[in-house]
Amino acid sequence: MPTPSNDTLARLAAVIESRRGGDPARSYVARLFDKGTDAILKKIGEEATETVMAAKDGDRTKLVAETADLWFHSMVALAHFGLTPADVLAELERREGLSGLDEFALRKAVRREGNDGGDA
Amino acid sequence: MPTPSNDTLARLAAVIESRRGGDPARSYVARLFDKGTDAILKKIGEEATETVMAAKDGDRTKLVAETADLWFHSMVALAHFGLTPADVLAELERREGLSGLDEFALRKAVRREGNDGGDA
Amino acid sequence: MPTPSNDTLARLAAVIESRRGGDPARSYVARLFDKGTDAILKKIGEEATETVMAAKDGDRTKLVAETADLWFHSMVALAHFGLTPADVLAELERREGLSGLDEFALRKAVRREGNDGGDA
Amino acid sequence: MPTPSNDTLARLAAVIESRRGGDPARSYVARLFDKGTDAILKKIGEEATETVMAAKDGDRTKLVAETADLWFHSMVALAHFGLTPADVLAELERREGLSGLDEFALRKAVRREGNDGGDA
Repeated sequence: MPTPSNDTLARLAAVIESRRGGDPARSYVARLFDKGTDAILKKIGEEATETVMAAKDGDRTKLVAETADLWFHSMVALAHFGLTPADVLAELERREGLSGLDEFALRKAVRREGNDGGDA
Repeated sequence: MPTPSNDTLARLAAVIESRRGGDPARSYVARLFDKGTDAILKKIGEEATETVMAAKDGDRTKLVAETADLWFHSMVALAHFGLTPADVLAELERREGLSGLDEFALRKAVRREGNDGGDA
Repeated sequence: MPTPSNDTLARLAAVIESRRGGDPARSYVARLFDKGTDAILKKIGEEATETVMAAKDGDRTKLVAETADLWFHSMVALAHFGLTPADVLAELERREGLSGLDEFALRKAVRREGNDGGDA
Repeated sequence: MPTPSNDTLARLAAVIESRRGGDPARSYVARLFDKGTDAILKKIGEEATETVMAAKDGDRTKLVAETADLWFHSMVALAHFGLTPADVLAELERREGLSGLDEFALRKAVRREGNDGGDA
């Protein structure tokens, strides 16, 4: 049986958390925490751009790697604000639950589009 | 027993996949697939910006919601290229495995910084 | 003689300024001002992503159009904070002046790279 | 008499152009050209994020500096594709001209909003 996927995120979050207050000279994540909010958020903008570029190249290996970077740095941002991937997964579950397992409705996105009739 | 959290992303990916080729008038995700690559990627840039703004506001509820949006649209992009969250989780696991469970090293990020001595 | 280029930015800034407090139902810019900071900044993230995608397509016409959008929305953001393109041009002039007309040094960017020996 | 502001962008574009093919070890811009498309575009995503963060801080000095960075790197991208700021200014003029000097209509943005009745 493969490792349950969300265990990956939880375990990664634990590693990130353990780096808080660590030696910036020895740990990349400790260094990000040490630099603070803007340094962390800047990485989100940067990795989002790289994800977009990898997709434009149609380079699937790079798309996976850049998305991993994007999610990883999102998790550092979450940790910086005392949050975890579990909070994000709960939010995704909540939205899914809005209209049942069969009819996931990303209502927020739909509302933004000014189209309140559509489902996800 | 609560819903096992470890298949949130897998279940969400299945919902996204099921929308491919669906009626753009009825489904937000079908509409995104229908519009194509640039419409999907544009959402990644947009949601990354909103994640950054929510974090700058120190609004934890909004940060969770925007990160959920960012991950959700990342998953639509992955699906558009025949990939799944499992591919991203495997990549994160692989990196973690590079230096053992205790010493996750995001070598790619570290290399980018031009500092090959640090661990994650 | 062609219209001096910076007149374009100044004239555009004047048009943007004249829309402040205008009827959101009749003017796109009045609508952006009315929606506030986040709506304006979100456009910057969005147009930056579209600029990147146009460049990845190697589509020069689109690259010009998206860069125009990016600069235009930057100017709306500047106006929202009581600033003008002239402030940005003065900053660019100031940097150029740091090392003379012949040796423009974007010192800030260079410093960021951790390389204080290079010129622009 | 002050330096005529109307050729700031043109002069800057000339400096950027002069760095093409220069020694990457000595010039930041030559280094960007040498690294290629993705390195240049990544800076656009990065500087857009920093512009957004500066604005969220309400830090006007930083907003001007980050917008200068964003425009500067946009100009490097333009140069990389054989284009100049004059092309972007011409596009902005063209849009302005669509409905006269008094009624600038950013038709593209308006169209995107699905509201073809509004002016800029």
